[in-house]
Amino acid sequence: MRQVAILGVAMTKFGVSEKTNLEMFAEAGLEAIAQSDLEPKDMEALYFGNCLGDFEEGQMHMAPFAHAELGLPISAPATRFEAACATATVAIRHAALLVGAGIYDVVLAGGTERACAMGTPLATKTFAMGHHAQYESRPGLTFPGVFAMAAHMYSDKYGIPLKELKLNMAEVAVKNHYHGSMNPKAHFQKEIDVNTVLDGMMVADPLQLFDCCPFSDGAAAVVVAEAGKAKDFSKKPVYIAGMGQASCGPLYLQKDITRVRSREESVSQAYRESGLGPDDIDVVELHDCFTIAEILALESFGFYEFGKAYDAATKRETYLGGKVVVNPSGGLKAKGHPIGATGAAQVTEIVEQLREESGPRQVEGARIGLVDTLGGDFGTICNIILRSETS
Amino acid sequence: MRQVAILGVAMTKFGVSEKTNLEMFAEAGLEAIAQSDLEPKDMEALYFGNCLGDFEEGQMHMAPFAHAELGLPISAPATRFEAACATATVAIRHAALLVGAGIYDVVLAGGTERACAMGTPLATKTFAMGHHAQYESRPGLTFPGVFAMAAHMYSDKYGIPLKELKLNMAEVAVKNHYHGSMNPKAHFQKEIDVNTVLDGMMVADPLQLFDCCPFSDGAAAVVVAEAGKAKDFSKKPVYIAGMGQASCGPLYLQKDITRVRSREESVSQAYRESGLGPDDIDVVELHDCFTIAEILALESFGFYEFGKAYDAATKRETYLGGKVVVNPSGGLKAKGHPIGATGAAQVTEIVEQLREESGPRQVEGARIGLVDTLGGDFGTICNIILRSETS
Repeated sequence: MRQVAILGVAMTKFGVSEKTNLEMFAEAGLEAIAQSDLEPKDMEALYFGNCLGDFEEGQMHMAPFAHAELGLPISAPATRFEAACATATVAIRHAALLVGAGIYDVVLAGGTERACAMGTPLATKTFAMGHHAQYESRPGLTFPGVFAMAAHMYSDKYGIPLKELKLNMAEVAVKNHYHGSMNPKAHFQKEIDVNTVLDGMMVADPLQLFDCCPFSDGAAAVVVAEAGKAKDFSKKPVYIAGMGQASCGPLYLQKDITRVRSREESVSQAYRESGLGPDDIDVVELHDCFTIAEILALESFGFYEFGKAYDAATKRETYLGGKVVVNPSGGLKAKGHPIGATGAAQVTEIVEQLREESGPRQVEGARIGLVDTLGGDFGTICNIILRSETS
Repeated sequence: MRQVAILGVAMTKFGVSEKTNLEMFAEAGLEAIAQSDLEPKDMEALYFGNCLGDFEEGQMHMAPFAHAELGLPISAPATRFEAACATATVAIRHAALLVGAGIYDVVLAGGTERACAMGTPLATKTFAMGHHAQYESRPGLTFPGVFAMAAHMYSDKYGIPLKELKLNMAEVAVKNHYHGSMNPKAHFQKEIDVNTVLDGMMVADPLQLFDCCPFSDGAAAVVVAEAGKAKDFSKKPVYIAGMGQASCGPLYLQKDITRVRSREESVSQAYRESGLGPDDIDVVELHDCFTIAEILALESFGFYEFGKAYDAATKRETYLGGKVVVNPSGGLKAKGHPIGATGAAQVTEIVEQLREESGPRQVEGARIGLVDTLGGDFGTICNIILRSETS
C-alpha cells in the first residue's frame, strides 16, 4: 500500500446555520481543496457522508449534488456513506484505503448534517432510528437512554457510587467546554463549572443536560492524497499511520456496554497497522456524545485500565497540558455534533494540531493523534491514527 | 490489482413481502455465502446497500444490524452505501475495489429494500427525494416526470413521431415481461402485449402504467473474493473484468437528457479497464426503470448509434436469441425494482447466465455480461462487466 496524506482540512462554524447541507459542504470542501493548493477539477472521487438529509431536507442521494455544487469532474464518482455518527470517518477511511491502493491519487472526503431546524426533541426521536427499529427504538429507546444505562452499569460494575461517578462525569463536560472556549468554530464557546452540569435539567438519569452533546448544523471536509502528491501541493501534510473499523450488533446482543468490543477491535486494527500503541498518542479527538462515553473510550484505547478512567478529567490528565490531551477542539460536547460531519471535523482538529496551527488550544509538540468515532449504540466504530511525519 | 471473482449470488423472490429489510437481506446473504462453500465467519467485510430504511421501517444505520443478522465477525466492518437506485452496484464495486487492492480477501455485498408497504403513490413521492430537493422535487418533479421529458426530447431530437416512439417503447415492456415470464424470482411473471401497454393508465405523458417498473420488496447479495479463493471454494466462479462509476449533477445542469453523460463516462471506464467493447458483450442487465430508459442505455453503451435504438426490441434484436440479449431476467420492468437491492440482483442474473444456470431464459454461449444501474436523475451510474473466464 502507498502512504496516504491529508493535504487540506476545513470545517464550517458549527452551531445553528441558515445554510443547506449542500451549501455547508461546498463551503468546507472548497476551503479544504484551496488549502491543498489544488482545484476541484483535480479531485478524482468524492467520499461523502450524511445521515438524515431525507428527514432534514427531503434530500436522498445527496452525493452527486454535492459533487455538482463543488464543480467536480464527471469522471470523479461521488459516493454516499451512512454509519450514524461515524459516517464521515467511514467515508474518510474508504477514501484513504482507495488512495493507498492506487485506485485514486487525490480524493475529497467529509460530511454534512443539518439537525438543528428539527429541534432537539424531534431530532432525538429521529436519530433514534440508529437503534434497531424492530426491537429497540420502537419500545422507546433513545441515545441518552443507552448511555444512561452504560453509566449505571459502570457505577455498579466497578463499585463507584453513582453520585461520585456523576461528579467525575461533570468534570468531563467542564474540560470539554474549557477546550471549546478556545475554538472559534465551536458551537459553544463558554466555560462552565461542575454546578452548571449538576444543576441542569435531567435528561435520562443520571445524564443531565450538560452531560449530553448538542445537535449542530455543520460540515467538514478533507483532501486525501497519495503521499507523493503532498510534497508537490501542500506545505504541511499529515500522514495516515493506521486505521480501523469494526461492527457489532444491536444493543440486545451486547452483554456489557461498559466494554465497547467494536472499539477494542477497531483501535487494535489501527495500532497494528501503525505499529503504534497507547503510549505513543499525544492528542485524541474521541466520541464524547455523552460524558460517560468519553470515559468508556479512554479505557478501550488502553490509556487506562478498565474501571479507572472515570476521574481522568478530574485529575486534569486529559486537559491541555495533561498526559494525553482529549478533545482539545471541545469535542462533540462543546464543538458540537452535526452527525454526518463529526468524523471529518475530528480529523480536521487532529491535522491542525499536528501542523501546530491550533493557537491557544495547541497541544505542545503533538506528533501523533487518534481519531475515534462511534456510530449508533456501538454498531460502528472507526479509528484513524495520524502522524506529522512519514513513518 | 488482483483479479476478483464472484463466488456466490442469491436473491429473494421479488414482489410484495411480509419480511423486514434485515430478514430479506439475511435470506439472500446466507444463501450467497452457502453457495460459495463458505461460512459467515469467513466474511471479512460487509458492503451493504439500502436507500430509505428510515422511511420504510424507521431504520437508519442498518449495516451493523445486517452484520449481526448474518452472524459476521466483529472484525468484519459493515458499511452502508446509498446511491438511489444504483446503491447495491456501488456497494459491490467498492467491495471489488478493496478485494482487488488486497485489503480484504472475501467480502459480502448487496442490498435490500422494502417499498411496497408504502403503496405506489407515497413511494413515488418518497423516492422523489432522489431529485434535488431545493430546486426540483419541491416543485413537484417525480421520476416518471423526468423520463417522460426524456421521451419527448428523444422524439423531438431524432424526428421520431411520439406515437411511433410509444409503440416501440411498448415493445420494450413486452420483451421484458416475456423474459420475466421465465424467471421464478420475478415480481411479474405474466406475458403482456402491446395493447396491455397502450391501454394502460397514463402516468406521465407519454409514459403509461406498463412503461413504468414497479416498486418491489426484495434483497440480493453476492460474495466477492480474490480470484485465487475461487479455485478453493467455488466450482463456477465468474470474474470481474472491468468497472465504472460516474456522477453528474442535478437535472437543471443536464442540457440533453437523451445523452446520459455519466453513463457514457462510466461505461467507457469499464470498457477501458476490461479491454472489451460493445461488440464483446453477450448479455446485459440494464436499468429499465421506464421503457425509454432502456432505449437511452443501449445507445450510451455503443450498441446502437444515438437515435437508433428505439426499435431494437421491435426488431427483436434485444430478445433472447437476438444480437445482444437485454434484461433476460425481466429487468426492473418485470423482475421488479427493490431500489437498494436492484444492482445486486442484476449481478446475480449475469453471474447465473455466465454459469449457464438460467434455465429457459439462458442466453446461449454467454461469456461476457454487462451490469448497468442508474441512480436518481442520472446523478450516479455504475457499470460492472463480468466474464466467465479469467482474462
